[in-house]
Amino acid sequence: MMVIAELDPQPEPDAPGLTGQIAEWVAASGPPSPPALVWARHALLDWLGVTIAGAREPLSAMLRDELAPGGGPCSLIGADGGADLHTAALINGAAGHALDYDDVAQAMEGHPTAPVAPAVLALAEHTNADGRAVLEALVAGVEVECALGLMTRGAHYAAGFHATGTLGSFGAAAACARLIGLDSGATAAALGLAASQAAGLKCNIGTMVKPFHAGKAAANGLLAARLAARGFSADPAAIETPQGFMATQCPGFEAAPFRPDPAAPYQIERTLFKYHAACYSTHAAIEAIGRLRREHGVSLADLAAMTLRVNPRHLNICNIAEPRTGLQMKFSLRHLAALALDGVATGALATYSDATANEPRYVTARRKITVAAEAERDRMVTRVEIVLTDGSRLAAEADMGRPATDLAEQWRRLADKFASLAEPVIGQSRAAAIIARIEALDQADDIGALMALTR
Amino acid sequence: MMVIAELDPQPEPDAPGLTGQIAEWVAASGPPSPPALVWARHALLDWLGVTIAGAREPLSAMLRDELAPGGGPCSLIGADGGADLHTAALINGAAGHALDYDDVAQAMEGHPTAPVAPAVLALAEHTNADGRAVLEALVAGVEVECALGLMTRGAHYAAGFHATGTLGSFGAAAACARLIGLDSGATAAALGLAASQAAGLKCNIGTMVKPFHAGKAAANGLLAARLAARGFSADPAAIETPQGFMATQCPGFEAAPFRPDPAAPYQIERTLFKYHAACYSTHAAIEAIGRLRREHGVSLADLAAMTLRVNPRHLNICNIAEPRTGLQMKFSLRHLAALALDGVATGALATYSDATANEPRYVTARRKITVAAEAERDRMVTRVEIVLTDGSRLAAEADMGRPATDLAEQWRRLADKFASLAEPVIGQSRAAAIIARIEALDQADDIGALMALTR
Repeated sequence: MMVIAELDPQPEPDAPGLTGQIAEWVAASGPPSPPALVWARHALLDWLGVTIAGAREPLSAMLRDELAPGGGPCSLIGADGGADLHTAALINGAAGHALDYDDVAQAMEGHPTAPVAPAVLALAEHTNADGRAVLEALVAGVEVECALGLMTRGAHYAAGFHATGTLGSFGAAAACARLIGLDSGATAAALGLAASQAAGLKCNIGTMVKPFHAGKAAANGLLAARLAARGFSADPAAIETPQGFMATQCPGFEAAPFRPDPAAPYQIERTLFKYHAACYSTHAAIEAIGRLRREHGVSLADLAAMTLRVNPRHLNICNIAEPRTGLQMKFSLRHLAALALDGVATGALATYSDATANEPRYVTARRKITVAAEAERDRMVTRVEIVLTDGSRLAAEADMGRPATDLAEQWRRLADKFASLAEPVIGQSRAAAIIARIEALDQADDIGALMALTR
Repeated sequence: MMVIAELDPQPEPDAPGLTGQIAEWVAASGPPSPPALVWARHALLDWLGVTIAGAREPLSAMLRDELAPGGGPCSLIGADGGADLHTAALINGAAGHALDYDDVAQAMEGHPTAPVAPAVLALAEHTNADGRAVLEALVAGVEVECALGLMTRGAHYAAGFHATGTLGSFGAAAACARLIGLDSGATAAALGLAASQAAGLKCNIGTMVKPFHAGKAAANGLLAARLAARGFSADPAAIETPQGFMATQCPGFEAAPFRPDPAAPYQIERTLFKYHAACYSTHAAIEAIGRLRREHGVSLADLAAMTLRVNPRHLNICNIAEPRTGLQMKFSLRHLAALALDGVATGALATYSDATANEPRYVTARRKITVAAEAERDRMVTRVEIVLTDGSRLAAEADMGRPATDLAEQWRRLADKFASLAEPVIGQSRAAAIIARIEALDQADDIGALMALTR
């Protein structure tokens, strides 16, 4: 007699948790959309510019002296010599955030490219990856750190963590896992390794440690992915599990599905770029004044009075009434408004000198300017109202929370910014060559030639 | 007419906060007491033994392959080749905790030597420091991480942080600051740099990331002190300040004075050493049974029944009833009790084989043993009650929470443990030479010769 075996139903496998969903997406999703790749090129150009200039800051030199006295095969951007891949990621990462002039993601409450790009570039240089793979890795890293940021609903940052260092470690790990081509299991281990390294405290904002966070995040994520590739084990649900990253560092966290709509735009398409080398909260005022200047032909000589209508949080961030130094000027709405109406290049680092802070024409002008806080006003939107000497009135608003829609215009502005930052360090012809190479990066066979230009 | 200037009283400077107090102590306190230095030698010998053996674990090899392919001047303990100082601290730090056989501090709720010793030794080798300075740095590092641990009152560890990684970063930073001779301002910066790097999650316990925490903590603290020496800036109150380390990672933290009694014993004098290569919660049972065996001449053949009276937490930690592998055996109170009564070397790594886990004499014996949880029982104290085949009864208790009082006996036991771990890797004569060198370490001009013996 034949026995028909009772069908033993396989237990339904548990649906993957958040870490598992992210790992599967990083390991197995198709190429990102063409617009996302365009944004990745923009982010990379912008980051290279601020890094080349940031490499001249003292903190960057300290890190090079301490960590890379012996040189190595990977480029130290904006500097002589080189380093091993892990050290290059750390040093370039810190240099990229040294000026606080790099891009911003509202979703992440931090700087999205700063931790990801240095890890990806060091790894790509080490492994001779091609340009297209670099751009795809950048898209993946930014997607992960921004999605995590959105899920924290502000609670992680509010608790005191500097998301560029913490969430950035996951972004760098995801990007490097993508570039290496890790499977989902190893990618989950990389995220687990990132979870146990991620760090960065807001109390250190205003010190050299803030840019150091970006460098450490890059190095953390790179090491996480490289060790996972060697078979290092880690908790496969470290982001959402009890006694994991969110349980310890994000009050009230609830995981949400990761990229539930595969056709949705990518997070990188919401990157905000800085065009003024000052606190981001001053940018809306500068932009609105620039528009009035261009559209109405007004200048500083025409100023009788000006009101800047801002969110109340600005008062504690960027309202130094009488700045005396170039650094203080970066946090002085009134002084920057005067400069903007005068047509000064607020994107140039050299503008932020002690001399400009104390220049009598601007001291006089800033005293005609009032900062008015309005409780309901969006943090990203500033309204500018000007009374001219002839009694007429002008007004304009700018919203710094909206990503650009004219990408050709954005590229032109970013290329100008890049040139202004890079030319004093590497010269005009190399700066132009870098812009051209990034414009064609998705066709580049490897990124060695690009990196050589940045040294 | 002469005007007598009104005396303008200097404002009283604020009393230093916790970070400042620690920094002042690290920078300016006198040499530690002779007993503390003895304990430092003990801790160092123990750590070197577990590190030499731990260097053979796969995770240690992965880290060497990834981070030190090019060699370098600092020793990779228990391995060929070398590395730069930062890499050596990381790799040796992970190797030292790979077996989970290193020392324990109840104050820290973690492993005190694991993050500190590798940072101190790499730095000392790099700078040709003398043996006395190494011991003083070790005392300082353990003092800081344990004092912070006491102040957390369990809340940091309970929240999900692995203190060996987090508080260990402060210990390593303090130790390196002491060894470099930083002033209090730079030491505070080093602590601020440590605060923004400190990481480690308990969800990763049971994976290779747990020992990796110790390595990262060592490297974090070393980098913190080295950067602070170069003038790197950081928040000078990062431990206790709003949005600082404790505010973000220790619910309900309240700072207490640091070492208010300068004559108090040092934290390092409360170090607990492991003499059995199994879960620490099994050690009290093993010790009590060993005593009964020695004092009453009983052995496994005499066993009719045994009861182990333990704290209820043991049931979830080390009560695998029927272990089948060597690893499971490390968490099986009943199996280990049988081995102990049989006089097996529970300190030898080779004991923990799958064969021993399945050996019929122990399988039979462990079924005669009962684990009884008692709610009021101290976690560190186990009571053992044995009924012999002749009907007579024996009982003993051991308390694993009490530091040793007979230091000569402790040294003998540590030397035996060291030999058993190190000899299979570096041979008998080198192992003996290391023991002799550590015994005289406070007279050593530099530690180069000691380190060369460990390679």
